[in-house]
Amino acid sequence: MIEIEKYIRDVQDFPKRGVVFKDITPLLSNAEATSYCLEQLTGFCENMAINKVVGIETRGFFFATLMAQKLNAGFIPIRKPGKLPFDTLKQPYTLEYGMDTLEIHEDAISKGDRVLLHDDVLATGGTARAACNLIEKLGGEIVQCNFLIEIEFLKGAQKLNNYEVRSLLTY
Amino acid sequence: MIEIEKYIRDVQDFPKRGVVFKDITPLLSNAEATSYCLEQLTGFCENMAINKVVGIETRGFFFATLMAQKLNAGFIPIRKPGKLPFDTLKQPYTLEYGMDTLEIHEDAISKGDRVLLHDDVLATGGTARAACNLIEKLGGEIVQCNFLIEIEFLKGAQKLNNYEVRSLLTY
Repeated sequence: MIEIEKYIRDVQDFPKRGVVFKDITPLLSNAEATSYCLEQLTGFCENMAINKVVGIETRGFFFATLMAQKLNAGFIPIRKPGKLPFDTLKQPYTLEYGMDTLEIHEDAISKGDRVLLHDDVLATGGTARAACNLIEKLGGEIVQCNFLIEIEFLKGAQKLNNYEVRSLLTY
Repeated sequence: MIEIEKYIRDVQDFPKRGVVFKDITPLLSNAEATSYCLEQLTGFCENMAINKVVGIETRGFFFATLMAQKLNAGFIPIRKPGKLPFDTLKQPYTLEYGMDTLEIHEDAISKGDRVLLHDDVLATGGTARAACNLIEKLGGEIVQCNFLIEIEFLKGAQKLNNYEVRSLLTY
């Protein structure tokens, strides 16, 4: 048992004033703490026959890559506009102020794929919800959405109420 | 033995006209091919007592994260400006046209750390060289720079001639 909270650093006013950012780089810089989180996260979705793990750019990539290898599944990135080189499917979504878009390669998911979606933090859930839409439009079945950290008061899990949602740490 | 070349997709004119981009997403979406590359890359640096693996944003993060866990080392991200939340050290560097900057957290590397630097592609070597400067300014010793792909005619290895350079695929 490792107290992973002590590897999560609060950074005030990042990326903008009034926000307290959960910095996971101290966790990633510790091999034992990272291994422990990886065990816990994959423990959430054992024996679910997951064959694709989708990570959301950028911080979702770290544990999504690790989980994919551990589950013997493929890793698929969902990225910001213009970053993926091949043909993409695009999903606009609403932010607190304005809009943003996520993209996935059109050939990244096949009909019937059993998909784990991962991001580092679940906040309002808008990004994760847009990612789920992309996966489902390509015919993937979302088996679980898991997160390292859930910011509970932002109620992101409500936006994902069609799916199983698991988080390792809640604040 | 896996023919990894067949999992690398050439994309014409990305990110700009005249460039042939080496797309590694088909490789990452295949668990067996990814596992094979991971074995090969970590095979380059066995028994070198590496305790930190540094990955360069963004595509360098995939195998750097995996290698760090396999080598029981910490993972450290080097990122584009404004992405790292804590105090950073900055390194400007020259691109084909203009300048860019890389950043690392000031507390990410300690004096005496034995560091593996990784990126997906070695092209002109400017980015990797800037990353090496950041690591050394923080007191880290660069044990090896390794790459999934080296574009040989761009002679990036010459910019890294102070270091051991290994690449899995050369084009």
